[in-house]
Amino acid sequence: MANTRDRLVEAAFELFAQQGFDRTTVEEIAARAGVGRTTFFRLFPAKEAVIFPDHDALLAAVDARLAAADRTTATVAVAEAARLVLRHYLEEGEVARERYELTRTVSALRDAEIAGQRRYQRLFREHLRGWLDGPGAPLRAEVLANAVVTAHNHVLRDWLRGESSEPEAALSAALADFVPRLWSDAPRGATPGGQIVVLRSDRDVEELLPRLRRLLAE
Amino acid sequence: MANTRDRLVEAAFELFAQQGFDRTTVEEIAARAGVGRTTFFRLFPAKEAVIFPDHDALLAAVDARLAAADRTTATVAVAEAARLVLRHYLEEGEVARERYELTRTVSALRDAEIAGQRRYQRLFREHLRGWLDGPGAPLRAEVLANAVVTAHNHVLRDWLRGESSEPEAALSAALADFVPRLWSDAPRGATPGGQIVVLRSDRDVEELLPRLRRLLAE
Repeated sequence: MANTRDRLVEAAFELFAQQGFDRTTVEEIAARAGVGRTTFFRLFPAKEAVIFPDHDALLAAVDARLAAADRTTATVAVAEAARLVLRHYLEEGEVARERYELTRTVSALRDAEIAGQRRYQRLFREHLRGWLDGPGAPLRAEVLANAVVTAHNHVLRDWLRGESSEPEAALSAALADFVPRLWSDAPRGATPGGQIVVLRSDRDVEELLPRLRRLLAE
Repeated sequence: MANTRDRLVEAAFELFAQQGFDRTTVEEIAARAGVGRTTFFRLFPAKEAVIFPDHDALLAAVDARLAAADRTTATVAVAEAARLVLRHYLEEGEVARERYELTRTVSALRDAEIAGQRRYQRLFREHLRGWLDGPGAPLRAEVLANAVVTAHNHVLRDWLRGESSEPEAALSAALADFVPRLWSDAPRGATPGGQIVVLRSDRDVEELLPRLRRLLAE
């Protein structure tokens, strides 16, 4: 038998689907899950929160993945952390699709979702801030963090709408494209001798990049 | 004498500064401006809106600037449209600083500000979508739009905090850096011979190449 938390989430999604978010009370959700109102509020701060029951756990997982990286493995960590979030939604399947429908129609849920996205942006930004150098690093960290979250959300949205059958591959491709473009410090206009090297390789770029950077930085 | 709209904005900012946003009623704002409650709601949909009185006009100006561009002048138009918004806040001066303090402390205003940012993002994204090519264009348009708005907000925030004395130059530099990096289509992963990696280095390329080749051949 599912634990109380899972039962509350399931009951909430069933009731929201049947009678709408606004017309469903916390009391009804709790009753359907066979617990009292107090138990609901012990597990969730508000009715909105039951829609995103794994936000805190996911944020903690992203934080841990990013914290385990250093400067040389950072781009891999960023891509893996983003994939970790995407994979969670893919595994949810129908629940993720129901949430998508709800957040599109209920403004309180859309606000909660936007607030959640900003927590991801902040988390990526803080870790990126520690890895990037140069005078433009704070701004670049913010642009990069928002690009990662934007790419994740875009790919997820395509999948939720049934417009993408390979979201993980799409996210990996997008991040392998955008992240290196934004990573390095702005080329100083005055740098004499700054050259551009174009390489072609069959190798996994994400695995290769940290080693290339080390070689160039020597 | 200022028009009714300006008087309402001025009265609202004075009252918010004196007694806080939450404790100020629309009736008080209207009374201080010498008009009735109905006049307030004819000009502003809600108490929050009086804090951002020029949002619609600014969005229309951004829309017009972007609509006047074509594909060949698009990057210039994007930079000018962003500068146009920044310049508006710089000209507001102290009013912009007071708004910043209010949005930091009043969650209803923060929500309204976030909603406003999303309107800018959507506007830039829609125009960018028409200029970009390739299968990844919708995602790239969204990442680019968010990068432009992120750069604008970052530079504006630095200025509002007194941490930047040349915000216009900072925004121009940031956009001249980020926009071209993100503009072009990704090198196709299916290109025979694998992926393309573009590196920039101050090092002597001839000395570097043998070591790069070894690394790629491993």
